[in-house]
Amino acid sequence: MNQNELKQAVARAAKDYVATHLPAGAILGVGTGSTANCFIDEVAALRERIGGWVASSEATRQRLESHGLRVLDLNEVVARGLSMPIYVDGADEIDAGLSMIKGGGGALMREKIVAAVAETFVCICDQSKRVETLGGFPLPIEVIPMAREHVRRELIRLTGGEPRLREGFITDNGNEILDVHGLAISAPVALEARLEQITGIVCNGLFARRGADVLLLAGSQGVKTCTRSTPAENPAAAMTPDAC
Amino acid sequence: MNQNELKQAVARAAKDYVATHLPAGAILGVGTGSTANCFIDEVAALRERIGGWVASSEATRQRLESHGLRVLDLNEVVARGLSMPIYVDGADEIDAGLSMIKGGGGALMREKIVAAVAETFVCICDQSKRVETLGGFPLPIEVIPMAREHVRRELIRLTGGEPRLREGFITDNGNEILDVHGLAISAPVALEARLEQITGIVCNGLFARRGADVLLLAGSQGVKTCTRSTPAENPAAAMTPDAC
Repeated sequence: MNQNELKQAVARAAKDYVATHLPAGAILGVGTGSTANCFIDEVAALRERIGGWVASSEATRQRLESHGLRVLDLNEVVARGLSMPIYVDGADEIDAGLSMIKGGGGALMREKIVAAVAETFVCICDQSKRVETLGGFPLPIEVIPMAREHVRRELIRLTGGEPRLREGFITDNGNEILDVHGLAISAPVALEARLEQITGIVCNGLFARRGADVLLLAGSQGVKTCTRSTPAENPAAAMTPDAC
Repeated sequence: MNQNELKQAVARAAKDYVATHLPAGAILGVGTGSTANCFIDEVAALRERIGGWVASSEATRQRLESHGLRVLDLNEVVARGLSMPIYVDGADEIDAGLSMIKGGGGALMREKIVAAVAETFVCICDQSKRVETLGGFPLPIEVIPMAREHVRRELIRLTGGEPRLREGFITDNGNEILDVHGLAISAPVALEARLEQITGIVCNGLFARRGADVLLLAGSQGVKTCTRSTPAENPAAAMTPDAC
């Protein structure tokens, strides 16, 4: 299977996961990117049993609406005390502990907010995204523009990596992105916590403390399902029932 | 002395501090608010020995420029490897460990960034701002609008306080502010770290890990000078030579 076929396969598997696990009438969170787009086109068929849809970006909102689906405001969902049992999204990289790098498309802040509200994060990707050590994909860091050079200096100090400004790109929140190249992230939870302490960073693309709960991973042998059952810093023991 | 006279007195004391401690030709950071405005009007007289000015808000930039002063871009200062030995700013509340609540005027993000770059934070205020326990002044929290209700829920869970939306207010960064009422903050460094972990918070108004280094405090007996010499979580031992 080529990469596009793998995306189609994992999108179908995620639709089946939702059909099995999402309570009737509950709210579904939907992520951003090419794999998430495949998922939207599949899961739209379940419109009768899904009570509402939350989008992690403007692009996703538009794609959901193009299927005639009702997109809810996240503030409204939380203020009304509604739950969002499942959030389905892709990742740029994912490790054995189900920590991820996200934000290649620039929607990291909204994706992280939707992930924080959701009960279960289901990550969908093809096997090219599954890595031993995060950091081959440059880590996106969303920064307040006036803090860019301060943050760049702190990132170099903290990580030893090379932050590069994503030229000509402004996030939905009006901020800039520094992509940090040359990392090998052995302790993602610890690094995420350190990044959160740097003044001027609005959001970092490491999803570790709140990583994925379930990984649907498409490979040449089909789609495997993995769940996170142990702390993220012990990836060797993290996989059950089926190592990804 | 009334409150306005106290602000004038501490502004003059801060000008003297800068005249004594800032190396000739070095860069000075200037904060935001009514006390900072008094300071600008005083310190402009030192224009010959100050190499450049950094403003923590649009309003401060304009006031500095109205004095004919050259305001530098913070990114340029950092990128050129220049140092900013002193940043002078007010606070809404300050405790014995020189932890502060800031952001009543809404400029908390930029103030925190300038404070992070500066070597020495000099806080200027009158005695009405000096408290035993932070939290009588509502704690400002800058949030991404789509995360407002999630953050509100997390703040209630974490602090037990009452977050209220600052109606009709948008920050320089396009975000909203929740003011958290009813707090009594006994461990400001720990609370700041917990707030930094809540997804959707862009900046919190607790300046504790990077609190003030020097406090110039105006009271009926004149202006006292205090310095932070011990970790912020041990405020009882924090003051020297002169308890504020």
